[in-house]
Amino acid sequence: MVQIRHALSVKRADNFAEWYQAVIAEADLAEESGVRGCMVMKPWGYGIWERIQRLMDARIKAAGVDNCYFPIFIPLSNFEREAEHVEGFAKEMAVVTHHRLIAGEDGKLVPDPEAKLEEPLVVRPTSETIIGDAMARWVQSWRDLPLLTNQWANVVRWEMRTRMFLRTSEFLWQEGHTAHETREDALTETHRAIEMYRACAEDELAIPVIVGEKPENERFPGAVETWSIEAMMQDGKALQAGTSHYLGTNFAEASGIRFQDREGSQQLAHTTSWGFSTRMVGGVIMTHGDDDGLRVPPAIAPHQVVILPMLRDKPEDAALLAYCEELRDAIAGKDVLREPVRVLLDRKPGKAAAKRWDWVRKGAPVIIEVGGRDMENDVVSLLRRDDLWNMENGKPNFSTPSRTETADRVVAILQDMQTALFVEARDRRERNVTRDVNEFSQIEALYAEGASAPGWVEVQWSRPTGEELEAVIERLKALKLTFRNVPVDAPPADGKCIFTGKPAVERIIVGRAY
Amino acid sequence: MVQIRHALSVKRADNFAEWYQAVIAEADLAEESGVRGCMVMKPWGYGIWERIQRLMDARIKAAGVDNCYFPIFIPLSNFEREAEHVEGFAKEMAVVTHHRLIAGEDGKLVPDPEAKLEEPLVVRPTSETIIGDAMARWVQSWRDLPLLTNQWANVVRWEMRTRMFLRTSEFLWQEGHTAHETREDALTETHRAIEMYRACAEDELAIPVIVGEKPENERFPGAVETWSIEAMMQDGKALQAGTSHYLGTNFAEASGIRFQDREGSQQLAHTTSWGFSTRMVGGVIMTHGDDDGLRVPPAIAPHQVVILPMLRDKPEDAALLAYCEELRDAIAGKDVLREPVRVLLDRKPGKAAAKRWDWVRKGAPVIIEVGGRDMENDVVSLLRRDDLWNMENGKPNFSTPSRTETADRVVAILQDMQTALFVEARDRRERNVTRDVNEFSQIEALYAEGASAPGWVEVQWSRPTGEELEAVIERLKALKLTFRNVPVDAPPADGKCIFTGKPAVERIIVGRAY
Repeated sequence: MVQIRHALSVKRADNFAEWYQAVIAEADLAEESGVRGCMVMKPWGYGIWERIQRLMDARIKAAGVDNCYFPIFIPLSNFEREAEHVEGFAKEMAVVTHHRLIAGEDGKLVPDPEAKLEEPLVVRPTSETIIGDAMARWVQSWRDLPLLTNQWANVVRWEMRTRMFLRTSEFLWQEGHTAHETREDALTETHRAIEMYRACAEDELAIPVIVGEKPENERFPGAVETWSIEAMMQDGKALQAGTSHYLGTNFAEASGIRFQDREGSQQLAHTTSWGFSTRMVGGVIMTHGDDDGLRVPPAIAPHQVVILPMLRDKPEDAALLAYCEELRDAIAGKDVLREPVRVLLDRKPGKAAAKRWDWVRKGAPVIIEVGGRDMENDVVSLLRRDDLWNMENGKPNFSTPSRTETADRVVAILQDMQTALFVEARDRRERNVTRDVNEFSQIEALYAEGASAPGWVEVQWSRPTGEELEAVIERLKALKLTFRNVPVDAPPADGKCIFTGKPAVERIIVGRAY
Repeated sequence: MVQIRHALSVKRADNFAEWYQAVIAEADLAEESGVRGCMVMKPWGYGIWERIQRLMDARIKAAGVDNCYFPIFIPLSNFEREAEHVEGFAKEMAVVTHHRLIAGEDGKLVPDPEAKLEEPLVVRPTSETIIGDAMARWVQSWRDLPLLTNQWANVVRWEMRTRMFLRTSEFLWQEGHTAHETREDALTETHRAIEMYRACAEDELAIPVIVGEKPENERFPGAVETWSIEAMMQDGKALQAGTSHYLGTNFAEASGIRFQDREGSQQLAHTTSWGFSTRMVGGVIMTHGDDDGLRVPPAIAPHQVVILPMLRDKPEDAALLAYCEELRDAIAGKDVLREPVRVLLDRKPGKAAAKRWDWVRKGAPVIIEVGGRDMENDVVSLLRRDDLWNMENGKPNFSTPSRTETADRVVAILQDMQTALFVEARDRRERNVTRDVNEFSQIEALYAEGASAPGWVEVQWSRPTGEELEAVIERLKALKLTFRNVPVDAPPADGKCIFTGKPAVERIIVGRAY
């Protein structure tokens, strides 16, 4: 077999966690900021998030949900209203206690003791309680329902262990919050939102996901039902990649969201909330990255095509640039995935070969190099990021379409790559879900120390609750496993629960998770 | 003269401040949140901001500036580095001192004394110091320059007196931060940014502005030059509507942004910063609002056209809706101001007349009502928001174009309105700038108590500094006046300074301001 000289310093198979950090560094996606738990998102990483945001925002608007913006600060007392919600969040929040600084005795700045807040403010970890206050003002009658709002915002959860994109103290997200007349309407909205996340993850991020309901121990604090999409990363671990919660009337009661119903009596609204965050960028990396760096699905690539002219600081450069500009305009004039192709003519100084590898590591879907010889032959040298290597000679797998056919070729490649990345990830996941498990001892064997990473197992269970569930969770915890979700489209149960031995009622996914 | 029954509860002429609050409430733009100094931006108000953001973001990207995202928290010590910057901001910041809550003795939540931060964190009031840290990491050589970054973010400045959109403790903005090899490059960028703000304000928000440099007492803390765009509101006051700062090497020195220059020696970078915020929505209200509510310039209107079918809960409704849908599709198929027309078919329950006035107050540029008789006659009833009243009979000034010509008519109206709103505002401003002032006593007379609001005066001055400037500022302050800026395109000075009697060197605008 030929030797490939991969572009990245670490291979996935050698150390997946180090490989993840290497992709982030070498694709120049983000970096540690020096501020505890907060990262800096750099142009290529933030550009991917901007694309995700734009596509998701279009879905949100199409669903008739209105964007609003609510305060970043939440009065402490708001958290005292919903007991489970406090319990879930109070332990990890940033608390503002002062509103002014003064010079202390040693001349250094300190919070001004004269400017202590009467009631401390919390930097929002999520906005159910503050949006609940607004909904209580806005909802009077059943005619005001459904009330469908969303905001794009930063939130802060004080995390002890952070990992870029996956778990940072500050992160960016959208949070949808809706209020409804009935339980049925609110459940419909909960399911609509998770379906929206599925569609965005699969169709745009090319990340296959399992839609399902979380078991009670994994619910959002205060929720009646929590739904998630779960994606399998290349190391077999799960990434919870978007959640949607039916909150019953719990938050409506805490915030006083009451309305006059069609019969004239007062009712509590049924509310939902759903969120999708910059964590998804981590999911893109761990789903599509390879030993050469990132591969960005075309739908979310800030540049889908990068043209690299091989400039030589000579008079011939002018003709080469003109050739490349014409090519850029021809490509930009085409549509792919319902938008004009995003193409960059990269004129930055530097050798074309070095720049090629920068763009390979960043994962631009198509890289086009143009040198003097290409121009003479009226062709271009084209690299497809998901078919990078010629396996016969171990060299980059350039094709050389003619100049005039390049634009159409690019469109075909981008369309194909969007699907190919999805299929590759889905097939890998399906190879790594074990479904023929009938005894807990089989799980123990699969996840024993030193066993090869088995991905997930889908088992039948009796949906135990309370102490019986606690006992099961402890057994899984010993293997570093958690319940992921109950897939909505799994076949019905037909055996017994591998945890309790009772008749099974449904199937549930078990795995290690980020 | 006919009597007009205006749609708003307060008239501009009666109480401008109350009128402003009434527009915000009755156009449903925003409301107080209950959290000190923070507002809730509601769908129509946030929708206007989203439009401004999208248009400004396109300009930022076209200028080759890369969007990034930096941490919301800034370590206290960052503020100690740049002395003037501390002085300017330390007095009004939100300070995070704890990272956890626990139940106190009375069961209420309190900051956990065990979770006190070693170094308090400030919620960013602006990001020069934290982005400076990143730039110090990113810039090594002149080849890394210029470094052009921008972020869209929320910032917090603890304001004692707040007013929605104009001055809130939390607000949304973009902040551009750039680093350059030379003073000249940085000044060019400073001017490019303010020109971008001028173009956005005038071409998209239809707000005429004066571009100019701020005098030294009005500079951003730590800046060498501060440029602003100043807009005149309908009450004659100025709104500073975007600023761009040349920071010299002050922040580069504080953050250590050094590079190896072309000759191989170490140099400090020259930096700039520039910002544009949700304050602009306040500027739109106070520039274009009238006694019927808001008028939103077409370029930034979330919906440019609203179609109201006069439904009667009868079988004929189906035909009426079909007629309206066809109309909507015809209008949406047209382009205006380089984008497809944004048209809403409003099917919400409620009487068409009541809904009409809601949309008048919100300021949708074109409102189209369609009833059974319109359909029979193959026409529509069209209201143009900036030509609302028939001055002969005091009734709404409906026109009735035929169905087939409506889409083209709408495009023509939207184009015309975008210009008409700008011209109206520019003419009003020009009527309210007094330029023939040669003595300070004339200013005192113009702004004496009880004098009719005079707008601005443009005077010649000798650009005093230090104590001489302080004395001038005190004289202005007694009249509640401030220096706005030195207009870049004012004619050269040809007289003497009205403050010092010395030969004048330039002209400067004086006015009351928000």
